[in-house]
Amino acid sequence: MFKDRKFEGLEPRFMEKVDLSEVYFMRFRPGEDLFGRMMEVVKENGIKQGVVLSAIGSLCDVSFRDLKTGSDLPLNVDKTNLMEEYGPFELLTLEGNIVPLVGEFGGLKDGDPVIHLHCTLGTAYGSLFGGHLFKATVFTTTEIFLAKVKNSRVKKKQGTVTGLTEMRTDL
Amino acid sequence: MFKDRKFEGLEPRFMEKVDLSEVYFMRFRPGEDLFGRMMEVVKENGIKQGVVLSAIGSLCDVSFRDLKTGSDLPLNVDKTNLMEEYGPFELLTLEGNIVPLVGEFGGLKDGDPVIHLHCTLGTAYGSLFGGHLFKATVFTTTEIFLAKVKNSRVKKKQGTVTGLTEMRTDL
Amino acid sequence: MFKDRKFEGLEPRFMEKVDLSEVYFMRFRPGEDLFGRMMEVVKENGIKQGVVLSAIGSLCDVSFRDLKTGSDLPLNVDKTNLMEEYGPFELLTLEGNIVPLVGEFGGLKDGDPVIHLHCTLGTAYGSLFGGHLFKATVFTTTEIFLAKVKNSRVKKKQGTVTGLTEMRTDL
Repeated sequence: MFKDRKFEGLEPRFMEKVDLSEVYFMRFRPGEDLFGRMMEVVKENGIKQGVVLSAIGSLCDVSFRDLKTGSDLPLNVDKTNLMEEYGPFELLTLEGNIVPLVGEFGGLKDGDPVIHLHCTLGTAYGSLFGGHLFKATVFTTTEIFLAKVKNSRVKKKQGTVTGLTEMRTDL
Repeated sequence: MFKDRKFEGLEPRFMEKVDLSEVYFMRFRPGEDLFGRMMEVVKENGIKQGVVLSAIGSLCDVSFRDLKTGSDLPLNVDKTNLMEEYGPFELLTLEGNIVPLVGEFGGLKDGDPVIHLHCTLGTAYGSLFGGHLFKATVFTTTEIFLAKVKNSRVKKKQGTVTGLTEMRTDL
Repeated sequence: MFKDRKFEGLEPRFMEKVDLSEVYFMRFRPGEDLFGRMMEVVKENGIKQGVVLSAIGSLCDVSFRDLKTGSDLPLNVDKTNLMEEYGPFELLTLEGNIVPLVGEFGGLKDGDPVIHLHCTLGTAYGSLFGGHLFKATVFTTTEIFLAKVKNSRVKKKQGTVTGLTEMRTDL
């Protein structure tokens, strides 16, 4: 798809040696808003950069987006499909990270934590679906190990190549 | 689904700062019972609370359950479907944790480790299925990084709201 | 599937206590070859044994393999199906590890790092597919936490039981 293509204005490459020794173990409870509760945890513990090391449970009332087939860069919301599903679903994987925003993006303001989560959900007969998660309610439980990323300078800012907020360490 | 709903008798909220520095790296071999072998590892190493940090491989003869669409709390086995599949399958994700039980639940007795695993499996043409895993045999290999969760007081006990064993730190 | 079956020539069982405290946090950029870039990271940082702790993003031009239903051991490439897909796809999970090879296997030579990755990908309407990943191009981003596995003696060598390269600590 990108054969011999040059991308003008890409964010610089980076690699950091970080410290994940500070880990928070918690359970979210039935009816709790997954993103709302995670935002509270992030703020209470001064987590600027974070990463989910493990999370399982079950969710209901989920909203997630996936890329339309054949979409090209830069992206915008019209190049994705929104799925809004009732469930409940087994939460098989919840992967992602938290990084502070520089500038504005969508409803987020400068300095806000960008909570970027991808999920895999199990349906009634074992087939799966999922994507970039935007909204979810805890059904029975969500059991989370969240690590603070120490020694990191990573922030996110909207980029011209992808159209999305992208990680960089030069801001 | 839970809009404006009150849950009576929910377990208290908790969040622990834990230490995952003690990590066990192992390979399970063809024909080994995944849960039986994991139980041996847990007992040999005095792991009361544990978490899977990474696991891939392939499995056969798997049994897993998913929630029936529209199921409400509290849950019981009739609100789930059992899938029993032969395979073999690529094991794409194996997420979960180990926490000791308080009281009894199913065939488990007080103090037994509850090994709670969710899996994602790849089928012949790349479509996926999975759920809450109950039984599996290792096909070629299962390569696991399992961390002991130090400084944790988390236990599980059957709760009235969900009907399942739920994490708490007040027991 | 393996009931009462004996496997002659299985690699010995092992379990190591390892140290994952050295973690590298990085972003791969649009158009980058996922395996090529990971190989550079591994070599630049002297990572002999490694494990992916977290990775999300989006990919295009992916190649992955899954096991044909009912395949028996030992495996070879004819017992798998190759999927080559254009995308782009959300990268929902990327699990796996890096271990040095003993002897030769496929195009790999003695001492080469075996980068073993399994992926889960989200398609346009939220259904998923994935398998053992062999080739991928970064679409918007791939955000990776990769740990060096210290205190490990694990290597991989082609085994007679599975036909694949398998982990062992006795070489």
